[in-house]
Amino acid sequence: MEILQNEELCLESNKIKEYDKKYNLHSWSAQKKLNPLVITKAEGIYFWDSTGKKYFDMSSQLVNLNIGHGNKKVINAIKEQADKMPFIGPGYAVDVRSKLAAKVIEKAPENMGKVFFTLGGADSNENAIKIAKMATGKFKIFSRYRSYHGASFGAANLTGEPRRYTCEPGIPGFVKFFDPYIYRESIRFESEEEACEYYLGKLKEQLIYEGTETVAAIFLETVTGSNGVIIPPKGYLQGIRKLCDEFGIVMVCDEVMAGWGRTGEWFACNNWDVEPDIITFAKGVTCGYVPMGGVIVSKKIGEYFDDNVLMCGLTYNAHPLGCAAGCATIEVYEEENLIENSKKMGVVLGEKLEQIKQKHASVGDVRYIGLFSAVELVKDKNTREALVPYGRDPEGIMGKIVGMLKEKGFSTYSHENCIMVAPPLIIKKEELEEAMDILDKVLDFVDEYIEK
Amino acid sequence: MEILQNEELCLESNKIKEYDKKYNLHSWSAQKKLNPLVITKAEGIYFWDSTGKKYFDMSSQLVNLNIGHGNKKVINAIKEQADKMPFIGPGYAVDVRSKLAAKVIEKAPENMGKVFFTLGGADSNENAIKIAKMATGKFKIFSRYRSYHGASFGAANLTGEPRRYTCEPGIPGFVKFFDPYIYRESIRFESEEEACEYYLGKLKEQLIYEGTETVAAIFLETVTGSNGVIIPPKGYLQGIRKLCDEFGIVMVCDEVMAGWGRTGEWFACNNWDVEPDIITFAKGVTCGYVPMGGVIVSKKIGEYFDDNVLMCGLTYNAHPLGCAAGCATIEVYEEENLIENSKKMGVVLGEKLEQIKQKHASVGDVRYIGLFSAVELVKDKNTREALVPYGRDPEGIMGKIVGMLKEKGFSTYSHENCIMVAPPLIIKKEELEEAMDILDKVLDFVDEYIEK
Ligand SMILES: Cc1ncc(COP(=O)(O)O)c(C=O)c1O
Ligand SMILES: Cc1ncc(COP(=O)(O)O)c(C=O)c1O
Repeated sequence: MEILQNEELCLESNKIKEYDKKYNLHSWSAQKKLNPLVITKAEGIYFWDSTGKKYFDMSSQLVNLNIGHGNKKVINAIKEQADKMPFIGPGYAVDVRSKLAAKVIEKAPENMGKVFFTLGGADSNENAIKIAKMATGKFKIFSRYRSYHGASFGAANLTGEPRRYTCEPGIPGFVKFFDPYIYRESIRFESEEEACEYYLGKLKEQLIYEGTETVAAIFLETVTGSNGVIIPPKGYLQGIRKLCDEFGIVMVCDEVMAGWGRTGEWFACNNWDVEPDIITFAKGVTCGYVPMGGVIVSKKIGEYFDDNVLMCGLTYNAHPLGCAAGCATIEVYEEENLIENSKKMGVVLGEKLEQIKQKHASVGDVRYIGLFSAVELVKDKNTREALVPYGRDPEGIMGKIVGMLKEKGFSTYSHENCIMVAPPLIIKKEELEEAMDILDKVLDFVDEYIEK
Repeated sequence: MEILQNEELCLESNKIKEYDKKYNLHSWSAQKKLNPLVITKAEGIYFWDSTGKKYFDMSSQLVNLNIGHGNKKVINAIKEQADKMPFIGPGYAVDVRSKLAAKVIEKAPENMGKVFFTLGGADSNENAIKIAKMATGKFKIFSRYRSYHGASFGAANLTGEPRRYTCEPGIPGFVKFFDPYIYRESIRFESEEEACEYYLGKLKEQLIYEGTETVAAIFLETVTGSNGVIIPPKGYLQGIRKLCDEFGIVMVCDEVMAGWGRTGEWFACNNWDVEPDIITFAKGVTCGYVPMGGVIVSKKIGEYFDDNVLMCGLTYNAHPLGCAAGCATIEVYEEENLIENSKKMGVVLGEKLEQIKQKHASVGDVRYIGLFSAVELVKDKNTREALVPYGRDPEGIMGKIVGMLKEKGFSTYSHENCIMVAPPLIIKKEELEEAMDILDKVLDFVDEYIEK
């Protein structure tokens, strides 16, 4: 078969789309319905399709492009490393591998000791499960229903939402508990503290029912991302920390989405001064310029593997190109003060979101921390009935809203009844306001939709 | 914590090693025992450590560097793509993404239709399991004991060898069958055909006991890699194909290690003219210059996902940098005739291995196809007793042999009682002979060891 003969080097945009549809399988989709945009350029907080149309990247692609598109420093670091040594096996020590490990530990909470590098979020969680099981000798793994931890078997069995189902029948010992999702709770609490006490009490009860001596780890997204930017109530994470200490359970914070400045701190757990035993990360560490993820373990867990074999491995562990990109990315966060900008712009974003909530009948809740936020759409503000039923969108309304946003130059994605708003951390006030005005307008349409 | 203050940009080799040991967790090891070489340069079939010592890369790192180190064409493709667009989300069409998909399908067997790109071998297999389950509506997965398919939960549950144990209790429905490992079989067969009939008969019996209507897929390494380069006897793969057709089972060939020229053909299944339903790949597609892997599915399976949602996804699906590297790597195979060179040099390698087997009391078997080979060490040629018991190496003898080889400039790794020999496909006759002389010498030591 000679598909590409003379056109190997420059495909035109219609050929790009044709080949894409013909030869690529796209994620989370039935392929026939797809009509992918052809993207030809990306710079800063914007990208352009092949017709020249420009988009605000208001989800930082998949909430990974924290430093925005086309950052020269990171690009140059990749090019230099490519010239020098694009690959060497995981068994060897190389400069960038040592440097990135040291940098990650420098940024992580004080109790952290070592890092195991992977390629993305799912395999970071895969390895964290294995590490927690090895370090404790126990096998049960707790995680929450409103969560996404990745699509491979281990990560998908952690995941609570429907993307887990394809990995069932599930792995024995994976147990789900409820999220502190106060807005959708049937009970109305007087305060965050009361809510917190309730959720931690239920979790403790469940741990005891399952047998605390069998529970290796509790996994949680420090701030739940894809499933609607659910922010833990005051005291919640400290409470989890206490339960873990009480029962010898490893506390794992999945910061694949929330880490690396997204919430206005290096790691989201810094917002509550909590030290987990393990942090998993990916996305923001290289912003996706090169695939990279990892598992940060406490000094204590690190020491366990001084004498015990770490039964983890992948060919592209601590890939030099990813390490070089990671070192440069962390320097960009530092030099451009992006963690602070995330916090500062987060205030602007929060104000704008509160206005939107006031104004629109279809906006039930807005949740935000740093530049990490979601708009939760409802049919009725009083009943809080979600705009679409759980796990389904019978009229395709969420797709329609996202399509209208994109049409007007605001690119993002939705999940259940939530619209994700998480722009690159380099965004400026005026840009943020300009983009949010688009969202504001499209919500007028949603208001009309629910009134019908 | 300020670890890196003034030394951020140039770590010296002792600092590199110090930081490596302090901050990195290394795979498959107890950390205290590690003394990783610091690697500073790599070119062609060689790499150098920080003392200036030069090594033949006789395992192509982890059998991934088929084109060797430092290939300029691939490096330039990476640099160009980094300048142009290092990342864009999986939902979009981009030139390199379309091009690599088309190129992969061009090289794959005629029945293949589409590809889903991942980052490495483990997640290729993870996604292949899910695809086979979705496409058949069945849940049981067959794979073999002497196999390695990766270290994440799904891939590790496919895996038959001890690296699976950390992912237990295992996923329900994963069933193991025996390999056609004729050299270690208790029965002595008259011919390959007789062996083949025996193994296929046992497998059919097992499929029936498990309930053929529940079996989604049979996974196998087309040529088993890490577990000793076990080559299927004549008719074996065709027999698996027939069983799969008879019972509506998806035949999955894991070509993560065996694919992309390693066996002297683009894909190892080409050696036996077999068309699997799914091929998983990684390593050779980019040779590790950028992490990349994928799942190739038949036209028929591809069509299933026209109307059914593909419940697979990862943030770095079809990563543009990986796609660019993949396109360039395939061109290198073509332009430098590496598939043919693999076959040609494979003949030289085979002759040398047969001589070694004749000469050394400690060499029980040598197995080779293309530039993919293993030397199986025994205590006694007649009893075939393995040099080390399964899953253990009480005297550390295998480590010692690999260490001696390395000491003399022959870099490779061992698994159980086998030494892997799988140099880059660019190797020349004289280089191959020079390197193999080192192996020959070290085997004198092994002969002495077993005589004691
Ligand atoms: C919190 C969280 N964990 C894990 C993952 C999986 O990461 P990846 O897509 O890189 O496998 C994601 C992806 O969105 C995530 O948001
Ligand atoms: C046949 C086979 N499958 C899968 C894998 C796993 O690949 P990775 O290490 O990229 O996850 C390997 C790795 O050696 C392999 O040899």
